[in-house]
Amino acid sequence: MTGTRLDRWHGAYSRRASGMTASQIRALFAVASRPEVVSLAGGMPTLDALPLPEVAEIVRRCAADSAAEALQYGSGQGDILAREQIVDVMTTVGVTCDPDDVVVTTGSQHALDLLVRVLVDPGDVVLVETPSYVGALGVLRSYEADVRHVPVDAEGVDPVALEAVVVGERAAGRRVKALYVVPHHQNPGGTTTSARRRAALVEVCRRLEVLVVEDDPYALLGFDHDPLPAMHSLDPDGVVYLGSFSKTFAPGLRVGWAVAPPALRSKLVLAAEAAVLCPSSFSQRVVATYLATSDWRAHVKVLRSVYRERRDALVGALEQHLPDAVLTRPDGGFFTWVAMPDDLDTTAMLPRAVAARVAYVPGTAFHADGGGGAHMRLSFCFPPPERIAEGVRRLAGVVAGERELRRTFRGTGPVPVAVPTGDVDRPATDTA
Amino acid sequence: MTGTRLDRWHGAYSRRASGMTASQIRALFAVASRPEVVSLAGGMPTLDALPLPEVAEIVRRCAADSAAEALQYGSGQGDILAREQIVDVMTTVGVTCDPDDVVVTTGSQHALDLLVRVLVDPGDVVLVETPSYVGALGVLRSYEADVRHVPVDAEGVDPVALEAVVVGERAAGRRVKALYVVPHHQNPGGTTTSARRRAALVEVCRRLEVLVVEDDPYALLGFDHDPLPAMHSLDPDGVVYLGSFSKTFAPGLRVGWAVAPPALRSKLVLAAEAAVLCPSSFSQRVVATYLATSDWRAHVKVLRSVYRERRDALVGALEQHLPDAVLTRPDGGFFTWVAMPDDLDTTAMLPRAVAARVAYVPGTAFHADGGGGAHMRLSFCFPPPERIAEGVRRLAGVVAGERELRRTFRGTGPVPVAVPTGDVDRPATDTA
Repeated sequence: MTGTRLDRWHGAYSRRASGMTASQIRALFAVASRPEVVSLAGGMPTLDALPLPEVAEIVRRCAADSAAEALQYGSGQGDILAREQIVDVMTTVGVTCDPDDVVVTTGSQHALDLLVRVLVDPGDVVLVETPSYVGALGVLRSYEADVRHVPVDAEGVDPVALEAVVVGERAAGRRVKALYVVPHHQNPGGTTTSARRRAALVEVCRRLEVLVVEDDPYALLGFDHDPLPAMHSLDPDGVVYLGSFSKTFAPGLRVGWAVAPPALRSKLVLAAEAAVLCPSSFSQRVVATYLATSDWRAHVKVLRSVYRERRDALVGALEQHLPDAVLTRPDGGFFTWVAMPDDLDTTAMLPRAVAARVAYVPGTAFHADGGGGAHMRLSFCFPPPERIAEGVRRLAGVVAGERELRRTFRGTGPVPVAVPTGDVDRPATDTA
Repeated sequence: MTGTRLDRWHGAYSRRASGMTASQIRALFAVASRPEVVSLAGGMPTLDALPLPEVAEIVRRCAADSAAEALQYGSGQGDILAREQIVDVMTTVGVTCDPDDVVVTTGSQHALDLLVRVLVDPGDVVLVETPSYVGALGVLRSYEADVRHVPVDAEGVDPVALEAVVVGERAAGRRVKALYVVPHHQNPGGTTTSARRRAALVEVCRRLEVLVVEDDPYALLGFDHDPLPAMHSLDPDGVVYLGSFSKTFAPGLRVGWAVAPPALRSKLVLAAEAAVLCPSSFSQRVVATYLATSDWRAHVKVLRSVYRERRDALVGALEQHLPDAVLTRPDGGFFTWVAMPDDLDTTAMLPRAVAARVAYVPGTAFHADGGGGAHMRLSFCFPPPERIAEGVRRLAGVVAGERELRRTFRGTGPVPVAVPTGDVDRPATDTA
């Protein structure tokens, strides 16, 4: 250190890095990961239902019997065994594809990262739902995309509004590169894009030459029905499909995938090789062996019932303790989206919530335009039902206190609150 | 497909993607991965020396006993157990650091990718050795860096030439962001930057405010001596150190790391979270357990002797069969750098070599400026000694044929040759 400034490389960062700053809520999430806090913030799947002895035997076999491939460098596109299994998984969303069409990635997050890398120049417009996945907004920001939110209703993105936004942006001289959607059990909105809406969106995007990016990690986690056919099945050359084993198997392996049109897929593979040489051969071998030898469909059924019970616990507790909040009642996935009564500021309230030992993600995290101030995302994926109910009770107490404060201090600005501090240890997970 | 053009998204790619094109030698490398071909091209480490039963038991335990962490999402910076072990490994190159200083990544390639992302705007200059690691050139190209080669001698980068290049580039109005070096057993040159040269380079870079990126995957693989102190140890705030377990343990796990100054490290973590959320928790747990419970230093000693024997086989065969080639005699690592007699064009010769069942990487792959046309990189890391000798015999035959052709067709341009074709399956490995 020179002693005259804290960061010797302050002037050396790229323009895109200037947008990479730690959020204020980050430190709070570190506190939220303490065991005494009920976290309704994170997107961590439960691992309770995993057949651990079976998984342990699979990983042992992968190292003992397949070391020459599983512990070695592999293909930048991903190993053929994993791609063959992924082709089989894709049939569950009505997609018929070939192993050649698949690119295996370090989680589906990296597929999105690589896709944005090969598509987006600074200032290019990418359209997203209102609200949209915080991790996608992070990737888009890191490539200096210009993010535009498109209105949604209970069936998904409004195709008329979508067309108007595309036309408007193009009239203003901007390049519109893609529409990013999470059509099943959306993160954070909890809604599923209906079949007819999928068709309408694909039609609009095909006509306007906008690539659809279909991020579908929750497809198999519908509580009451099987997945709808993927948008990719409606226009395989117009839609890039992103899939993940993080919600249905194990996020710690970091295995996701993209199914993309051939030329675009070749670009993704080249970008992947530049970024990581290849995804983990070992993780891919474990996933491929699990899919080939375990009854993974039965495991998914167990997950559906576990998450249905937790959804019921969350929604039931909200109806009981926060009856005037407006919430989605998701029929799958991990998340409920809540509009707070009295337009309560969920960002300002978060320190008080954490002090009361309950955590959530404020709605602003899911907006690139400052929206979502009176919303929050509540996740029901990780804590067991009784903890979820306790978390909502604590949250209701915080909301009651917030309203009381607001009546007392109306118009005097934010009220300071003491909040415990902690080191940042699991930041990624808490907004995933 | 519209039927009117092959790629519907042809006009939608980013500017950086236009530089991502499959090389002509790519298809040849697919052929080179066939068992009948002796590949002196790839950078795959041998896995023969790994204690496989021990590794199998470690991975089993990680899944059976540590599932809640090992199979779950983790920190974007990497898990604390892995970072603590990495701190211990760093002492082997004379670096004292704290787990807070370490960022675990999906192989050290991803550390480099993230570093370039937070540093380089299109057109920024990054300085590299002559020749330089092909994978680094790929990353730099994908972020549109302006790569400048700096002359090297037997002791590493020439500090006087380095200063002249920096001053010249800055006088021309360009921003010089970093010097990228592989100081131990360089890929592809095979040379090690001497201790006094390390000090001189760090001094120049400190004075000129150029960040040093020290990529050090081969540090522990010196045949005759322990590693030299890392450049990072000379100026911890001026050097980012990149490390890897791919050469000393197993590349299939994809675990590497960066040790970086605090502010830069924070940027790297934010970039990592955007790109992949977090590195594989499972891979990190396996590496941390291996390092904590196995005699990994003894394993490294075995590797040194295995690679020393293979280096001897390669250099010996070259001296016997290609006595007029000029080559480095590396005292560690994976690679020998060969200057061909008569300025033979190694790129033009490659199809003939592959047809003769031997493969190498042409020198042009390691140059961003078209240089290296009469050079090749020969690797001795993967094939056993007798295969290496056979590969060199085949190569000598190809060279003899090439000289014969040249005498016959002098001045008539390249001579066509029939070469088998194959699908691209292990591209990343063959240039790693």
